[in-house]
Amino acid sequence: MKVRIDGVTRDFRTLWREGKTVKMINQRKLPHKFEIYSTNSYIETAEAIRSMTLRGAGAIGVAGAYGIAQAALEFAESSVEEFEVKIRDAAAILVKTRPTAVNLANAVSRCLSVAGKGIVAERVKRIVNEADAIAEEDLESSRRIGDYGSQLIQDGSRLLTHCNAGALAFIDYGTALSPIRFAHVQGKEIFVFVDETRPRCQGSKLTSWELKQEGIQHAVIVDNAAGYFMRKGEIDMVIVGADRIAANGDVANKIGTYEKAVLARENGIPFYVAAPRMTFDLECSTGDEIVIEERDTEEVLSIWGEDENQAILKVYITPRDTPALNPSFDVTPAKYITGFITEVGIIKSPYRENIAKKLSRRLV
Amino acid sequence: MKVRIDGVTRDFRTLWREGKTVKMINQRKLPHKFEIYSTNSYIETAEAIRSMTLRGAGAIGVAGAYGIAQAALEFAESSVEEFEVKIRDAAAILVKTRPTAVNLANAVSRCLSVAGKGIVAERVKRIVNEADAIAEEDLESSRRIGDYGSQLIQDGSRLLTHCNAGALAFIDYGTALSPIRFAHVQGKEIFVFVDETRPRCQGSKLTSWELKQEGIQHAVIVDNAAGYFMRKGEIDMVIVGADRIAANGDVANKIGTYEKAVLARENGIPFYVAAPRMTFDLECSTGDEIVIEERDTEEVLSIWGEDENQAILKVYITPRDTPALNPSFDVTPAKYITGFITEVGIIKSPYRENIAKKLSRRLV
Repeated sequence: MKVRIDGVTRDFRTLWREGKTVKMINQRKLPHKFEIYSTNSYIETAEAIRSMTLRGAGAIGVAGAYGIAQAALEFAESSVEEFEVKIRDAAAILVKTRPTAVNLANAVSRCLSVAGKGIVAERVKRIVNEADAIAEEDLESSRRIGDYGSQLIQDGSRLLTHCNAGALAFIDYGTALSPIRFAHVQGKEIFVFVDETRPRCQGSKLTSWELKQEGIQHAVIVDNAAGYFMRKGEIDMVIVGADRIAANGDVANKIGTYEKAVLARENGIPFYVAAPRMTFDLECSTGDEIVIEERDTEEVLSIWGEDENQAILKVYITPRDTPALNPSFDVTPAKYITGFITEVGIIKSPYRENIAKKLSRRLV
Repeated sequence: MKVRIDGVTRDFRTLWREGKTVKMINQRKLPHKFEIYSTNSYIETAEAIRSMTLRGAGAIGVAGAYGIAQAALEFAESSVEEFEVKIRDAAAILVKTRPTAVNLANAVSRCLSVAGKGIVAERVKRIVNEADAIAEEDLESSRRIGDYGSQLIQDGSRLLTHCNAGALAFIDYGTALSPIRFAHVQGKEIFVFVDETRPRCQGSKLTSWELKQEGIQHAVIVDNAAGYFMRKGEIDMVIVGADRIAANGDVANKIGTYEKAVLARENGIPFYVAAPRMTFDLECSTGDEIVIEERDTEEVLSIWGEDENQAILKVYITPRDTPALNPSFDVTPAKYITGFITEVGIIKSPYRENIAKKLSRRLV
């Protein structure tokens, strides 16, 4: 992704590996400060995941893979027996940092599964290669989502997105933001309405930051205002990401996605979900089976921001004992979704049939 | 309204008059601190309105009336000629504080119109009496809205409200919150979902504070979560206030109201608008004629809260140069509204006919 630093535009990935060091954009400082954070051991990488120095499905998966690569490099001098024990312990520590992140567990176990037998040096090499391959696959699927999705975006389009399914949630490009990036590079004039996305404000903090770096026209709106602009005819298309997609096309995504989907349909606006194949969970038959995580109500009662002295701090919008409820995700029934943008093309209704068909390469 | 101070429950109006002094709950300090703010002259009252020490349609109207009463008392020793000039200047100053607030202009001009002729002392008396009458009428219409509206609320109901159409927006009781207060006093077990209502968070700051004082069970949710709870079947009824209602029943209200109305209909949930007759604007044929105010985008980019040292301050969620759009109100088409709760009863569809009929007492 592009990042403008002191007037110069440079290209960054969300995270990358340099030997035993993993470097990442520190997402806890964005959008106020751009800083690169380095971890020199798998323990430090685990801590970076836990503390949300980086977040987002794809990025966490790759961080887990890089973490296990770091561990392998750290244990390269161990005996075979020692290595096997230590690498398994490291995997457990990494996976525990975000227990509900399926990507993280999958990436770590994929690296372990290729370690194979034989001398430690060879095992280390295979693990490190697999970690690098996971990163490249993440990048490639985001790129293809951008390529396919951009074909749906007309010149002059005004789009709405919710939360951050951008480059920062993956290695680069993102899912929902990838077609927007591609359309912009293709020279299409586009404008993006950015839902602020309370409670954590990933829209106003991260999506807005990414679009600014790329020079894509946009405006942040409070979540309450999306319907207003839809009804006024100022939004042509909605693109969002997904956390989990059931076999019938029901989508779990950031809280508020369901509201935008209902409003889009009410106003005759196409509503697309952009996601790589790994987000589809064919073992989950419908959205009703998806358990919605309730997070700390502190997120509702407080907010992070920068004061007039440029200090980043948390303030309480309400007294700390105010009762609140904080479901983090919601389920958007498939009937509100115009199509899925994946790295193997656009998937249209009937979803149960077409999702299975498109993903069959992975299933057999 | 009830206010618990140091464990003792006392009863307060949003504002009241004590001779030449107007006292009000300082809404700029809520919900963090409960403070009474006093103004000793009409100039100070004008400043309190301008700085939003008090806000809300009814409260601003009464503040304007009390302000002109203060002015009359201040000028009681003037000659007739002087009095006429000074009172007109005072009226202009008061009305200018919130130019779009119809209530304010109406209340001030109503007080002036009863001043009549004759000696100054008599004029002063008539103005002061009229101001007091306006306050009592505001109180009485809120009470009746509560009485009528509470008949719609079943024991065990779970309600959703947006923004603050509570006691703090009027002299007492409020509009949307009045039926909720009455239902609670009638012994019905109710639970209120409180939309936080970005950008100014009147829901999490004011509605939640009012419900807490009354001991009414509630939870603050981010605006994004209302649809989630509706779809889960956890909301039985929505009640909101209104800023302006067109002759056909289209409603202008706080941004986000339209979203909640569409979601309520999609989920088969009754959606009621509670408002006194003065909110209906029969000269406005449909909602399309209502101009929507765009406010400073600063409201979107920043938020007020309390830091860990109990200081109330503003923090920026995003960099200050982030592009944003901030429509303050939206229009909810009449077709989404189940009924209007007014001080002369419930108004049902067909709205153009039934609104005109119900409000005829005022029209002839």
